[in-house]
Amino acid sequence: MQARWAQRAHDIESFKVMDLLKRARELESLGQDVIHLEVGEPDFTTAEPIVRAAHVALDKGLTQYTPAAGIPELRQAIAAFYMTRYGLSIPAERVIVTAGASGALLLIFALLADMGQNIMMADPGYPCNRQFLRLLEARGLQVPATAEDNFQLTPELIEHNWQSNTAGVLLASPSNPTGTLVSPEQMQQISAVVRARKGALIVDELYHGLTYGVDAQTVLATDDHAFVINSFSKYFGMTGWRLGWIVAPEMAVPELEKLAQNLFISPSTLAQYAALAAFEPETLAILEARRVEFGKRRDLLVGGLRELGFVIPAMPEGAFYVYADASHLTDNSFEYCWSLLEEDFIAVTPGADFGNHQAHKFVRFSYTTTIERIEMALARLKRRIERGG
Amino acid sequence: MQARWAQRAHDIESFKVMDLLKRARELESLGQDVIHLEVGEPDFTTAEPIVRAAHVALDKGLTQYTPAAGIPELRQAIAAFYMTRYGLSIPAERVIVTAGASGALLLIFALLADMGQNIMMADPGYPCNRQFLRLLEARGLQVPATAEDNFQLTPELIEHNWQSNTAGVLLASPSNPTGTLVSPEQMQQISAVVRARKGALIVDELYHGLTYGVDAQTVLATDDHAFVINSFSKYFGMTGWRLGWIVAPEMAVPELEKLAQNLFISPSTLAQYAALAAFEPETLAILEARRVEFGKRRDLLVGGLRELGFVIPAMPEGAFYVYADASHLTDNSFEYCWSLLEEDFIAVTPGADFGNHQAHKFVRFSYTTTIERIEMALARLKRRIERGG
Repeated sequence: MQARWAQRAHDIESFKVMDLLKRARELESLGQDVIHLEVGEPDFTTAEPIVRAAHVALDKGLTQYTPAAGIPELRQAIAAFYMTRYGLSIPAERVIVTAGASGALLLIFALLADMGQNIMMADPGYPCNRQFLRLLEARGLQVPATAEDNFQLTPELIEHNWQSNTAGVLLASPSNPTGTLVSPEQMQQISAVVRARKGALIVDELYHGLTYGVDAQTVLATDDHAFVINSFSKYFGMTGWRLGWIVAPEMAVPELEKLAQNLFISPSTLAQYAALAAFEPETLAILEARRVEFGKRRDLLVGGLRELGFVIPAMPEGAFYVYADASHLTDNSFEYCWSLLEEDFIAVTPGADFGNHQAHKFVRFSYTTTIERIEMALARLKRRIERGG
Repeated sequence: MQARWAQRAHDIESFKVMDLLKRARELESLGQDVIHLEVGEPDFTTAEPIVRAAHVALDKGLTQYTPAAGIPELRQAIAAFYMTRYGLSIPAERVIVTAGASGALLLIFALLADMGQNIMMADPGYPCNRQFLRLLEARGLQVPATAEDNFQLTPELIEHNWQSNTAGVLLASPSNPTGTLVSPEQMQQISAVVRARKGALIVDELYHGLTYGVDAQTVLATDDHAFVINSFSKYFGMTGWRLGWIVAPEMAVPELEKLAQNLFISPSTLAQYAALAAFEPETLAILEARRVEFGKRRDLLVGGLRELGFVIPAMPEGAFYVYADASHLTDNSFEYCWSLLEEDFIAVTPGADFGNHQAHKFVRFSYTTTIERIEMALARLKRRIERGG
């Protein structure tokens, strides 16, 4: 009776953390106080000036389609931000507004990765990257990245793992789940290696703005041919609005625009008009205060976890994640996550959601909750360890 | 220097009307009064109760991610709408909220069409359907549908054109660009034919609610295994919000949910809370008044075009399109569209945007503008014909 599902539907995996989340909600409905350290979005709701801009747009009746690449004002505002933040002159025409970074990933991979080709990426990494490629009958070539290399691809790793059907390389800086950055020097060397192989370099700069004690440099500072993925979700705190952007090499713009027309028609109109307020000084001051708060949480969580014996081999300098080695407590981090939830009511994400390389050792802690809740979680972890687990 | 684009980027086409639109804007900036009969969205902005609900959601700080399949309240509201509108009991669990109908098409095709397979569809039809399949390394099997068959696939056409690698059939009722419907009897026969071949039946019900003198019946009335695509864009007037939905067979829901998690994370939060107001009596009264207005425009446009010698072989009973045969005036409807724009400042969409079958004869007129503007356009067309063109 039932139609057959396509093979890709079997191959594309769900996030393992979803089952944990479901169970967490059950526990909560039974009255348990679950501490959420698994969430991949800021606990702050959208900043007031952005919300205000949305109210104004609603009152103006701005509810219809926009151009596929976004409203010109927003493309210009994003381009101008590259000047104020990085001192770079980027023409607005190279900016394409997308339905979240998810939309940006689909467009870029659709443009670059032919059927049967692969895009190289670090393992561990954001799981959807390889799922997007599987969707397109291409493949994510996951290369084990070690703590010694900050969990990032290196020029050597890229040279060593390049295949005849490799179409390009995806970097994430700061990275989810590790919070680590690629240094400007490293980025420049990687550009050269990729260019020499006539591949494309894609850099996920989603967590730019959320760095602590260091500034993230955009790849565009040294490579005008790279594809940049960014988003209003994380630093700008607009997750539920589904708005992101691409900065593309000039020649790719008409192609991406054509794909965007067909696949999305246009990004959310209201989100676009709201996002115009994201670059205003008043908003940036709010975001800076939030960044400072995230930094305090990071210091507390990293320090607390290390005290409890977790190994955090590469200091997370950005995003809101700590990728911690729990192998002093378990040889199966997935089971450890379940037990942490069931016994101590702490929700974290198992390493298995981010790849295969040493995934059984690692768990990802998100500091997307308050200092008080993080302290509570550390206290619970301490008691657990005192119990011997 | 430049990376190579994937073959699919070459194959996926842009809409021909985009160049016309660009030229229309140039003409307007030169002071010309262009009448827009090419636009595929209602000229009405979103109804006030929906806008009001969005204001409330903003004030409540509802700006973060939702579940991938949508907020439970909205899934329930959509399910309840199937009871009030069609008298059908549909469990809310079978409803998946998507990022527009575009999101729905991507999810359904990703689930059903394996690499190298095809989905059968009528030519003429909505152009993005086949582009989504091309994206996935599958194919749209475009079957010429004639005016005698209301420009729709028939059970006979489906039987005749079925191939060993056909995964399913896509119908659109009402159809873009023709505004024609599939009758309930026809739909039931098609279900049987598709089921006998173990294929999937997908029905685009995007323009439901916008029918004139006839009610559109959902395929779900007679086929619980069909996939329905619908949207808040057209009838509900929420184009720029990017919100649609799927009703899927129960067994497909976990698969679609998993794909949605990976490809979209979640649909727009604000749009979802706003859409809760779409089913309220106050909103439906506004939408009904708009439908009546669309019906008057249709009658005016169809009558006026026929008087001018355009052949409209299948009466459009839904959507807001008239697919008119202009072969008494041209043997190249694409050039005709350009000349109509340059000489008479009327923008319409060439048949070539909707397929190949007799596309050179047809143009699509949208009645997404006022009665007054449609009258002006008819007067301009009359003068043009008097001039002999």
